[in-house]
Amino acid sequence: MISNKLSVQVAINSWRLVVERANTILSSLTQDELLKEVAPGRNRVIYLWGHLTAIHDAMFPILGLGERLHPELDAIFVSSPDKTGAQLPPLGELKKYWKEVNAKLLSQFASLSADEWLQRHYAMSEEDYAKDSTRNRLAVLLSRTNHMSYHLGQITLALK
Amino acid sequence: MISNKLSVQVAINSWRLVVERANTILSSLTQDELLKEVAPGRNRVIYLWGHLTAIHDAMFPILGLGERLHPELDAIFVSSPDKTGAQLPPLGELKKYWKEVNAKLLSQFASLSADEWLQRHYAMSEEDYAKDSTRNRLAVLLSRTNHMSYHLGQITLALK
Repeated sequence: MISNKLSVQVAINSWRLVVERANTILSSLTQDELLKEVAPGRNRVIYLWGHLTAIHDAMFPILGLGERLHPELDAIFVSSPDKTGAQLPPLGELKKYWKEVNAKLLSQFASLSADEWLQRHYAMSEEDYAKDSTRNRLAVLLSRTNHMSYHLGQITLALK
Repeated sequence: MISNKLSVQVAINSWRLVVERANTILSSLTQDELLKEVAPGRNRVIYLWGHLTAIHDAMFPILGLGERLHPELDAIFVSSPDKTGAQLPPLGELKKYWKEVNAKLLSQFASLSADEWLQRHYAMSEEDYAKDSTRNRLAVLLSRTNHMSYHLGQITLALK
């Protein structure tokens, strides 16, 4: 395996591993635990789950992988904090979105060549990319993997 | 910049960014907040800080970058859970270790070539590496970056 292909593979493995850990934790939470705050006065697990789904969904356009599947999630899980009265989607729907978004992302990741991973992402201009070539798709992937780990550390606190 | 070098650079940037975020959060915590549990009955911030320091320190031998600076931290922050009566190092010492370990790691990271990042790490045998070449130094770096993000998500809950 040539080395740039190998480093991209390592990054995708790392993403997949954290998604799998999230799946294990989320599927072991009871309905009550999903509605619990991760710490007193903080976000509820269900909000963080929706938040992760929305942020992952937004990766499609940022990585140039097409349209979002659920742009409607942003109003509830990104622009508004938790517990501000927004109507959350039913739990069954949220689970479906999460699965669907992550499955499609992973299959799209495999469609990009190693060189494409090192090209600029679409949340920045060609001009800015010319100044800093590390702001590429791979950087977005690592940043979103860290974001997922960050909230997973919080979600796990709601487990008994 | 050739692409395997670029992907390694992206991974090191991601590590550095999370260390910088950790520094910002940790330095803004009061002494009281450092002694707080991140959620009722869970680890205290100071324990997680020591835990991260110990795990980062253990990266030196795993990455083949020489001896650990503070192997004595493992008994307190890795083998034992929090609040089991172990005597923690004074806060000033812990801060010093954290800074020292991360500074040395970052400077050592820069000394490895892109190819060396894609070679096996030292927590696995040559035999296992032959079966799976993605289990390399770069994979360790991404895994420890995620680990840090995970606990940082928890530490941040102790902030007002």
